[in-house]
Amino acid sequence: MRTISAILSWITEVLCEINLVNTMEQPAGFSRLGYTKEEQEAHQKFQLIAEELGLQTSRDDAGNQWAMWQVDPNAVTIVAGSHLDTVYNGGGYDGTAGVVAAFAAVKILKEQQYTPLKNIAIVAFACEESARFGMATIGSKAICGQLDGKRIAHLKDKDGITLQSAVIQSGLDWDKFLTSKIKTSAIEQFIELHIEQGTTLEKRQRDIGIVRAIAQPTRLSIICTGMTNHTGTTPMNERQDALVATAGLISHINKVAIKINERQSTPVMATVSTIEAGPNAMNMIPGNVTIRVDIRSTKAKLKHEVVQAIEQFIAQDQNISFHIETLVDDDPIQLDPHIQNTFLRLCKELNFSSIVMDSGAGHDAMNMAARWPSGLLFIPCRDGISHHPQEYTEVQSIRNGAQLLATYLKEVTGTMHTQASLQQNY
Amino acid sequence: MRTISAILSWITEVLCEINLVNTMEQPAGFSRLGYTKEEQEAHQKFQLIAEELGLQTSRDDAGNQWAMWQVDPNAVTIVAGSHLDTVYNGGGYDGTAGVVAAFAAVKILKEQQYTPLKNIAIVAFACEESARFGMATIGSKAICGQLDGKRIAHLKDKDGITLQSAVIQSGLDWDKFLTSKIKTSAIEQFIELHIEQGTTLEKRQRDIGIVRAIAQPTRLSIICTGMTNHTGTTPMNERQDALVATAGLISHINKVAIKINERQSTPVMATVSTIEAGPNAMNMIPGNVTIRVDIRSTKAKLKHEVVQAIEQFIAQDQNISFHIETLVDDDPIQLDPHIQNTFLRLCKELNFSSIVMDSGAGHDAMNMAARWPSGLLFIPCRDGISHHPQEYTEVQSIRNGAQLLATYLKEVTGTMHTQASLQQNY
Repeated sequence: MRTISAILSWITEVLCEINLVNTMEQPAGFSRLGYTKEEQEAHQKFQLIAEELGLQTSRDDAGNQWAMWQVDPNAVTIVAGSHLDTVYNGGGYDGTAGVVAAFAAVKILKEQQYTPLKNIAIVAFACEESARFGMATIGSKAICGQLDGKRIAHLKDKDGITLQSAVIQSGLDWDKFLTSKIKTSAIEQFIELHIEQGTTLEKRQRDIGIVRAIAQPTRLSIICTGMTNHTGTTPMNERQDALVATAGLISHINKVAIKINERQSTPVMATVSTIEAGPNAMNMIPGNVTIRVDIRSTKAKLKHEVVQAIEQFIAQDQNISFHIETLVDDDPIQLDPHIQNTFLRLCKELNFSSIVMDSGAGHDAMNMAARWPSGLLFIPCRDGISHHPQEYTEVQSIRNGAQLLATYLKEVTGTMHTQASLQQNY
Repeated sequence: MRTISAILSWITEVLCEINLVNTMEQPAGFSRLGYTKEEQEAHQKFQLIAEELGLQTSRDDAGNQWAMWQVDPNAVTIVAGSHLDTVYNGGGYDGTAGVVAAFAAVKILKEQQYTPLKNIAIVAFACEESARFGMATIGSKAICGQLDGKRIAHLKDKDGITLQSAVIQSGLDWDKFLTSKIKTSAIEQFIELHIEQGTTLEKRQRDIGIVRAIAQPTRLSIICTGMTNHTGTTPMNERQDALVATAGLISHINKVAIKINERQSTPVMATVSTIEAGPNAMNMIPGNVTIRVDIRSTKAKLKHEVVQAIEQFIAQDQNISFHIETLVDDDPIQLDPHIQNTFLRLCKELNFSSIVMDSGAGHDAMNMAARWPSGLLFIPCRDGISHHPQEYTEVQSIRNGAQLLATYLKEVTGTMHTQASLQQNY
């Protein structure tokens, strides 16, 4: 019991330290956007924590922060980690809990005086959230070789700062950033622990979620063009009000997604998450509106059903013109089944209740899974609330995750042979 | 005919000059916001045109620009004019046509070698459009004593510049601005000519609209608060999506206004003209949305019917909270009937087809009408389009207006006795 209480205190302390706060209760939440000074400050705390654990730190060309427990430069490396950036006014557990759990796992192993036969690395990926540049998991995409330099250089944040200049300002070299893809041989497998950001674990009272597939988003940008005119003189029946037309579309998208969920069991989520109207002035009828739609499911077919419903709705409107641009349309990612089975068995051994489930949110693990056997674990978070100051996860849950991770790392680094599935093509 | 062609050329020239362009065809329209350098440049052109006509120019403490044809410092003054500011990417006729027509009227009178027995003044009111600060007719409100210093100092534009600092930057003194109310005796009556910004004149093929009442807006700000959460993990049936709730409200407001118009003849216009969603990020469910609603009618009862419908709709939603703030709720303004009758008679004499009508848009005349007998004339504009680069009025229409104004000015300044209605209380 003394050990458990000590690790709980340590996790609490490290969680605050890496979040740059004295208490996790922050009414305005955390705003630590990717490639900002705030994210870098968290990475500096990462370095301090790693050094206290006797790990070697380094920053790669994509700005990801690494902590190595290197036992043999010629041995393969098992990587565990997540990210430290947040959305605007987000929570301090999304991403951070996974990095802290990985540190706690290493601490547990070190205290057990365990010596692995393979190297263990902890990673904090840079800029996982799409909140700043509209593109998610940039740090892990970079090292997986998934970035298209031409497409991304000009991505801009709210203040008009481009990704390129943000990357350079954070002390990186843009050319090296674009070629920061690492060798396949550098990593054997990747494990990410993350808060669920949903209510499945809480409702079913499970300690651990073992993720089978990650729903990748289909994202649309829809521009609606009507006619700007004076609000006081344009009769109601002579208007081409782009906001009224868009309002109908927003309601329709919501209804369609609800209906599909009523019909079958794999969830599909469709959200109109951003809206900009022009000219957006008190006495002018909105002549143009741009919305962005985020559609998720682990079944690509369901996502496309929503897209079709949008296209059908738009085709009906004779008065207003709509233009759809597909920003992203990626297929769901299947994770390594052998890793899942191992976690299922270890949960039983450790007496953790678990469930195999899908992830509605994207994670760095989805990029890693395209190149290396990868696993994703969920721990519960209160009321499923995330990307919000009220996001909360019990320290006990992080500790459960750390214990599971430690046990897993021990198992896969206790032998020179890989345990990961070989039936997949990486 | 030579005279008509000459005045048409002169109007065309002055219209371009005061709009600071060489041609009125401007694909991006005109962006000459109130209390900006651009508005001041137009006011400088106003001074040049006035001086060429032998008028004395001055700027009052509210930044309104005046041109005086002073025949006797002890005589009363008849004022004609409008404004020179525009909305973002607006047209070059809204306001400007009225100022140019007033100049043309004076030019016609001067060429006739007419000498008035009263002073005639032309005014260009500052910041008539609400596009910049969300408040309309600031210049005329100021001289009518309708500004509340505490309420307005902190009004901000898109870039965060306050009205106070914009006023100071335009070379005015803020304290003098707030006390710029002029004496009742300084003016005898006010006449404004304006483009209709609607389709009544065009559809009924009338040269002149004689306005009976001005619909003043009722304006609401509605804040909708739901719950921000992750787009990929929050089930559709567990959401508190503020944008979905607001979309329903936008559709409802539009439907309600259309229905009221079907039922009776006085128009009511209800427009959700601005929208801001938060956090407005790709992967977050909108937790808060603010819209502003502009409601207009010359019957206050119809406006309040729309407000009631909004309140009823909002009361039904259990899942989301709405907060309504009434920004403005002014009664429609009735204009001077004697002035209307005079214009009706003069139109017949001049062989102009005319119609007595209401104004859906607010104008400086509504502030002036609260203190002095006031009249408002409309000339047609193409397809009713206004607040848009495609706004267009024929020079012939401006010339018709100028001729009517000249004839009217001659009538009211040809005698020392006032012609305006005395049955109203000013």
